[in-house]
Amino acid sequence: ERTGYPEVVFGQGKTASQVVEIFSHLMENHGRAMVTRATAEMSVLIKERFPDAVYDPVSRLLTCGESPRKYPGIVVVACAGTSDLPIAEEAAGTAVWMGCQVERIYDVGVAGIDRLLAYREKLQEARVIIVVAGMEGALASVVGGLVRRPVIAVPTSIGYGAHFSGLTPLLSMLSSCAAGVTVVNIDNGFGAGYAAAMIQQLVKEVAAK
Amino acid sequence: ERTGYPEVVFGQGKTASQVVEIFSHLMENHGRAMVTRATAEMSVLIKERFPDAVYDPVSRLLTCGESPRKYPGIVVVACAGTSDLPIAEEAAGTAVWMGCQVERIYDVGVAGIDRLLAYREKLQEARVIIVVAGMEGALASVVGGLVRRPVIAVPTSIGYGAHFSGLTPLLSMLSSCAAGVTVVNIDNGFGAGYAAAMIQQLVKEVAAK
Amino acid sequence: ERTGYPEVVFGQGKTASQVVEIFSHLMENHGRAMVTRATAEMSVLIKERFPDAVYDPVSRLLTCGESPRKYPGIVVVACAGTSDLPIAEEAAGTAVWMGCQVERIYDVGVAGIDRLLAYREKLQEARVIIVVAGMEGALASVVGGLVRRPVIAVPTSIGYGAHFSGLTPLLSMLSSCAAGVTVVNIDNGFGAGYAAAMIQQLVKEVAAK
Amino acid sequence: ERTGYPEVVFGQGKTASQVVEIFSHLMENHGRAMVTRATAEMSVLIKERFPDAVYDPVSRLLTCGESPRKYPGIVVVACAGTSDLPIAEEAAGTAVWMGCQVERIYDVGVAGIDRLLAYREKLQEARVIIVVAGMEGALASVVGGLVRRPVIAVPTSIGYGAHFSGLTPLLSMLSSCAAGVTVVNIDNGFGAGYAAAMIQQLVKEVAAK
Amino acid sequence: ERTGYPEVVFGQGKTASQVVEIFSHLMENHGRAMVTRATAEMSVLIKERFPDAVYDPVSRLLTCGESPRKYPGIVVVACAGTSDLPIAEEAAGTAVWMGCQVERIYDVGVAGIDRLLAYREKLQEARVIIVVAGMEGALASVVGGLVRRPVIAVPTSIGYGAHFSGLTPLLSMLSSCAAGVTVVNIDNGFGAGYAAAMIQQLVKEVAAK
Amino acid sequence: ERTGYPEVVFGQGKTASQVVEIFSHLMENHGRAMVTRATAEMSVLIKERFPDAVYDPVSRLLTCGESPRKYPGIVVVACAGTSDLPIAEEAAGTAVWMGCQVERIYDVGVAGIDRLLAYREKLQEARVIIVVAGMEGALASVVGGLVRRPVIAVPTSIGYGAHFSGLTPLLSMLSSCAAGVTVVNIDNGFGAGYAAAMIQQLVKEVAAK
Amino acid sequence: ERTGYPEVVFGQGKTASQVVEIFSHLMENHGRAMVTRATAEMSVLIKERFPDAVYDPVSRLLTCGESPRKYPGIVVVACAGTSDLPIAEEAAGTAVWMGCQVERIYDVGVAGIDRLLAYREKLQEARVIIVVAGMEGALASVVGGLVRRPVIAVPTSIGYGAHFSGLTPLLSMLSSCAAGVTVVNIDNGFGAGYAAAMIQQLVKEVAAK
Amino acid sequence: ERTGYPEVVFGQGKTASQVVEIFSHLMENHGRAMVTRATAEMSVLIKERFPDAVYDPVSRLLTCGESPRKYPGIVVVACAGTSDLPIAEEAAGTAVWMGCQVERIYDVGVAGIDRLLAYREKLQEARVIIVVAGMEGALASVVGGLVRRPVIAVPTSIGYGAHFSGLTPLLSMLSSCAAGVTVVNIDNGFGAGYAAAMIQQLVKEVAAK
Ligand SMILES: Nc1ncnc2c1ncn2[C@@H]1O[C@H](COP(=O)(O)O)[C@@H](O)[C@H]1O
Ligand SMILES: Nc1ncnc2c1ncn2[C@@H]1O[C@H](COP(=O)(O)O)[C@@H](O)[C@H]1O
Ligand SMILES: Nc1ncnc2c1ncn2[C@@H]1O[C@H](COP(=O)(O)O)[C@@H](O)[C@H]1O
Ligand SMILES: Nc1ncnc2c1ncn2[C@@H]1O[C@H](COP(=O)(O)O)[C@@H](O)[C@H]1O
Ligand SMILES: [Mg+2]
Ligand SMILES: [Mg+2]
Ligand SMILES: [Mg+2]
Ligand SMILES: [Mg+2]
Ligand SMILES: [Mg+2]
Ligand SMILES: [Mg+2]
Ligand SMILES: [Mg+2]
Ligand SMILES: [Mg+2]
Repeated sequence: ERTGYPEVVFGQGKTASQVVEIFSHLMENHGRAMVTRATAEMSVLIKERFPDAVYDPVSRLLTCGESPRKYPGIVVVACAGTSDLPIAEEAAGTAVWMGCQVERIYDVGVAGIDRLLAYREKLQEARVIIVVAGMEGALASVVGGLVRRPVIAVPTSIGYGAHFSGLTPLLSMLSSCAAGVTVVNIDNGFGAGYAAAMIQQLVKEVAAK
Repeated sequence: ERTGYPEVVFGQGKTASQVVEIFSHLMENHGRAMVTRATAEMSVLIKERFPDAVYDPVSRLLTCGESPRKYPGIVVVACAGTSDLPIAEEAAGTAVWMGCQVERIYDVGVAGIDRLLAYREKLQEARVIIVVAGMEGALASVVGGLVRRPVIAVPTSIGYGAHFSGLTPLLSMLSSCAAGVTVVNIDNGFGAGYAAAMIQQLVKEVAAK
Repeated sequence: ERTGYPEVVFGQGKTASQVVEIFSHLMENHGRAMVTRATAEMSVLIKERFPDAVYDPVSRLLTCGESPRKYPGIVVVACAGTSDLPIAEEAAGTAVWMGCQVERIYDVGVAGIDRLLAYREKLQEARVIIVVAGMEGALASVVGGLVRRPVIAVPTSIGYGAHFSGLTPLLSMLSSCAAGVTVVNIDNGFGAGYAAAMIQQLVKEVAAK
Repeated sequence: ERTGYPEVVFGQGKTASQVVEIFSHLMENHGRAMVTRATAEMSVLIKERFPDAVYDPVSRLLTCGESPRKYPGIVVVACAGTSDLPIAEEAAGTAVWMGCQVERIYDVGVAGIDRLLAYREKLQEARVIIVVAGMEGALASVVGGLVRRPVIAVPTSIGYGAHFSGLTPLLSMLSSCAAGVTVVNIDNGFGAGYAAAMIQQLVKEVAAK
Repeated sequence: ERTGYPEVVFGQGKTASQVVEIFSHLMENHGRAMVTRATAEMSVLIKERFPDAVYDPVSRLLTCGESPRKYPGIVVVACAGTSDLPIAEEAAGTAVWMGCQVERIYDVGVAGIDRLLAYREKLQEARVIIVVAGMEGALASVVGGLVRRPVIAVPTSIGYGAHFSGLTPLLSMLSSCAAGVTVVNIDNGFGAGYAAAMIQQLVKEVAAK
Repeated sequence: ERTGYPEVVFGQGKTASQVVEIFSHLMENHGRAMVTRATAEMSVLIKERFPDAVYDPVSRLLTCGESPRKYPGIVVVACAGTSDLPIAEEAAGTAVWMGCQVERIYDVGVAGIDRLLAYREKLQEARVIIVVAGMEGALASVVGGLVRRPVIAVPTSIGYGAHFSGLTPLLSMLSSCAAGVTVVNIDNGFGAGYAAAMIQQLVKEVAAK
Repeated sequence: ERTGYPEVVFGQGKTASQVVEIFSHLMENHGRAMVTRATAEMSVLIKERFPDAVYDPVSRLLTCGESPRKYPGIVVVACAGTSDLPIAEEAAGTAVWMGCQVERIYDVGVAGIDRLLAYREKLQEARVIIVVAGMEGALASVVGGLVRRPVIAVPTSIGYGAHFSGLTPLLSMLSSCAAGVTVVNIDNGFGAGYAAAMIQQLVKEVAAK
Repeated sequence: ERTGYPEVVFGQGKTASQVVEIFSHLMENHGRAMVTRATAEMSVLIKERFPDAVYDPVSRLLTCGESPRKYPGIVVVACAGTSDLPIAEEAAGTAVWMGCQVERIYDVGVAGIDRLLAYREKLQEARVIIVVAGMEGALASVVGGLVRRPVIAVPTSIGYGAHFSGLTPLLSMLSSCAAGVTVVNIDNGFGAGYAAAMIQQLVKEVAAK
């Protein structure tokens, strides 16, 4: 396993039976598996075969088995609230499945800056911070300015009009005035969780030497 | 004078002699005039005829005469620094020429949130706040969340790559999560200053009744 | 209450039960609440608990309680007709809920300029004018040229082809040849009503001093 | 001559000597010729050979010879002022060279609607109206709503920010709420003048039967 | 009646009962009416009240009454086939309802140039030619090059991928290498038919003098 | 040599001395070399060292040495005229340098369809046809419809307004109604010539077996 | 038959009965026919009349009859997996129907480069390679760099966020760093298969001489 | 120092004297400073005052002083060659200035996959990999698929046509099929170097505990 993890199945655009087949194949070879963008139908079929599988309808993650490795230190996932929640949970769930410990800060938006600043310490203690934001995506810049740790920004597609299905927070995060913020695709909570785990894996493997 | 002000000349794309002619015409009819996006060459020609004219190379405003009205209360113009300065000054200069008192807060960016919050009171005492921002334009949302007053956002064209000459902060300000922020065109400091003065004019005329 | 108003709930993308919960929370703390983009389902659930709640299916506003403040003077909401009506009503309903008196001018389009000009006086007597327009968004410029008061423009998403779901009137309003017009997001009637109320709140509080 | 006219040379992107050669060829075959987007350099070279050639630096039209046909009735070219002038003149000059009589209305913008309405009668007497407009391009809709004649709209590239070099008035004119307005490419004054002449040619040839 | 015609109702985005009301109002005042983008439901309701009303499900035009004027000479509507048919019929139906005589050439595409050229004479005898085209919109240029008459191009939204719902033929028609082609919005068959009738009205009224 | 050819140097964005170095390196290893987008300065420096090198200022190709292979059969390069010439010549020059025989048809545009049809036979006898077109790019569809051979379309960046520097013919060629037309990047004459040579190389190598 | 093949029916946007009629017409004249983007409904109706017709629900191709010509040598169709399969099959099925022999390589993605390289020889022996790819479209460049044969790239619309329904792999393939890759429209498997067959037809006809 | 580093000066759009002033201020407070996008003029002025300052004209970095911390382990910066070099050097120089050890792999492009694979081991031993790529940006996906470490992708603006000044590799990297690749703005070598250093700082500080 080149990356240290079995491949993750992208459920969207696949039929339930296609997913079941790939999932079974992964379970056989690796003893664990994860599907992103899974549907309830996929979850039913897979639980029939793998009763230990868990489906979370918010993040749409369907997982089975646990990471053999556990990374010390916290990965924070931060967002402003209700509408960004599914993507934030996709990021959090992915990171957890890969062995991270995740702390969620889900009620912080830049228009209520004091609520965000109440978490300043928690943010600064984290090893990696994932910022999930729709609207104008400003949260990434404010958080990026508060910490000395890697910040991974995930724009979300929830919004309307000049939001252009996430294009606006995407461009905004790429143009962030906070140095060192890196960005993943719109709604790609999975990618952010994965990148955070890659960093945590590096930290652990270096420390272990 | 329908709007309460003589028309303002848009200097860009006009020859210096075209501008001189329009300027002279306005001086005759109104006793005062303003050119935006004026060049040094225009300023030289106009000062020959109107020695009281003033040219500011930063804002590129060329003005002559003063507003007969003066509005009590403060209009704040806020921005993050060096590169947004010309547009911030265009906004400030326009508002002043129209009779406003302007206070400048020019060293605040969202990546250094504490510096911004140090001005919280000043922002809350203002009657109107103009926020000028390039990069990801996040300043408008943070300021909008701090105050109970009209906030006018001006995106600027300074940036590169995914900034697309100001498109990113424009879209970002339009998608602001702070309620009631209104937006003007990229680099349109003039429009923001003008809109602020329209509000101040309204306040004064109502109070005067 | 920093802004003078309880936070407004954005109903879109939330489940009915999420909205009921937030609504109840707001009623408890502020005695009044408003949801924008509310669905009929939300309205049924909320009226069960709060029989005084009112749902307007055109504007999709769901409100309960009244503004303790009432602002003298008129806010005009103008649009060209049938298709822009939901957004115009969102703007009007928001402004009313916040304490404004609203006058609607709903049958004016620039292709029938005489009908618009018949309202010239009404427009000039208003304190703030909200212009709601789809198609090419030209109404904002014509109205902006008629008055000496703040004009807030709202592009709407109704149209087809080169209209690009409101992008065209948005860009057009931002490029308006009438000075001082400010713009909110496509279909953001709420934002325009809110901004108008912020201006009226300023006027009242200054006059009260 | 299929269209009734010799082909017109598009000067932009050609070398002066390329243009001279094509021009000479046309003069030989048709006794007259026209270059659009001509440069001063081209004009000098061509006048050496064809002393009757005329170069207009505003429209950048370089013409020689006159239309053998003259069309009765007026083609109006309308625009808001200084910055749209070169394109308006390109339209006017093209129409004239093709045999039209042109009347110019060059000081009308929608933000000063009364000035435009002062020309209502002139506009209604015209056979074809060409509307040249930058900014938000609203003039086309207002004029289109005033007349019962073909209206050809020409967006111009002068503007900044959300104007996107003429994209905004282009989209706006295509989305015009006035029925029957047709549109040509950004800055294509030539195309508008040509289309107007095609209509006038049709009218004359039908009347002549 | 400024334009010589009663206003045409844009059916899209209106409820059936809204349309019935406007239709009835127009019938009362003008004795005839037309709805574009009408639905079958609208047609049923309107035929109940106005048994003479006619609904064409292809063009989605719902009409009642006839033009008191009839224009001699032919308006040709040309397109490449099946998928552009609804828009071609909207153009044709509009022109007919306004008093034009229309000839349809519906099986010509530029990839089969000989089929198009078989109609060369018919195209050259027409007074106005409306070209309806999706895909790459090339038909407008080829036809424009064949005739000495006004050509009105209508891009359609049928296509996929890089066609971008009609953006591609729209831009292509605006960039046409054939002089004097004018363009209307994507899928705006109505606008093209209307513009053709405006030209025919002009021709007739001039000839009548 | 995997592809059968030495790598071609892309001259744009390289300094003259960088190009000289790479060129010399290629000459040493392959006995021949080609630079695209070469400048006059590069040509001077290279001719000093390699007196047999040839620079063509129109195509901006700088070549030295000849293809050891020569492909029978004709590659046609077609375009409408003056402004597409540099790209057409880049395509032609590249194909020739790679061993093709090229025939140029440089005066055909779709607005003058008869001129194009005069070459029908020549087009049909070609093995591969490269169509270079700016404006609306319609030539690719018309030619594609005339032949039973591979057609490679090259959009060019020459145009203005809605042409968007070649985006319009690019999208138009991709949406071509003629089956089997393939497309290369805007202004990529090199790529088209290269692809044509790949086809000719295949034909020859198969025939040789 | 100019191209050597009967016209292919584009099923999308046509009614089943329209398709049946055209199909029957083609069968009568050519003894064989093909519909792309066919629906199950079309297949049922057509099989009633033509029991030999074959419908493939993955590629959505509906075919009847076989190519009288058969081309020696292999056309490879390569893609990364599940989601690009329908388009890959459209390409493969089209090529087969036109007489090509196709080999499918359907489990190669650039993120697992070794799996791709395992097919290096197969790719190099092919006469034409069709690369079908969504995501970032990188496969075209890697394959293009491995072979000395024509490579035709097909971007697909499967993806999300910054993928913009295939725009990203389209632009990416057009900007490929591998020389000579040509591109067809997003999801245009048909066009790629057709172009491959045109090349194979050329090879055969030349070899036959 | 919140982030562990003094703020870095963005030289672009600032006057040389503005930069000198900020630089001096940083030197006073931190004993070291860095300017990105510095000009030769800035370098001359700064070296006058700070003779130890170093200016690299390729990366345009102007630095003075060294990082007190040094991070063990390698950061690899990979790119395809000449045109991406300035941005690759900006990334490398930034990382070095912040205390990283950098190894450069500058001759790898995906069209020559074997050259890239020759570095497989070096890539897999790195702690963080920065991939700089213009054209279609495919390098990020291929490298991302080879390693189990954080990969930061930097699209560059060098290219033409459908490359749209870096938009294409930006979108392509965001849509990468390799999990966990994160992306920074077009040409933002600085941001990538900074993010890599943030990761290395984390690793060191954790290991130090
Ligand atoms: N939500 C997601 N967004 C982006 N990539 C994903 C997602 N879920 C899984 N993947 C990636 O998709 C690939 C598997 O795709 P597939 O073979 O289509 O299931 C793996 O490389 C995953 O790392
Ligand atoms: N910098 C500016 N941006 C936008 N509009 C402006 C600017 N300066 C002046 N204007 C407006 O431009 C109009 C005058 O344009 P002009 O007649 O071209 O000078 C007036 O309506 C002004 O309000
Ligand atoms: N299909 C159509 N496309 C564009 N405009 C239309 C269409 N049908 C009617 N109209 C115009 O829409 C206006 C009436 O709009 P409404 O008041 O919404 O019915 C009139 O100006 C018509 O000329
Ligand atoms: N005009 C051109 N457009 C696109 N690619 C080119 C061009 N000229 C050369 N190339 C390709 O660019 C690569 C060489 O790039 P470079 O190493 O920067 O010189 C080779 O793969 C060529 O096939
Ligand atoms: Mg930071
Ligand atoms: Mg506020
Ligand atoms: Mg005004
Ligand atoms: Mg009209
Ligand atoms: Mg013509
Ligand atoms: Mg063909
Ligand atoms: Mg190759
Ligand atoms: Mg990896």
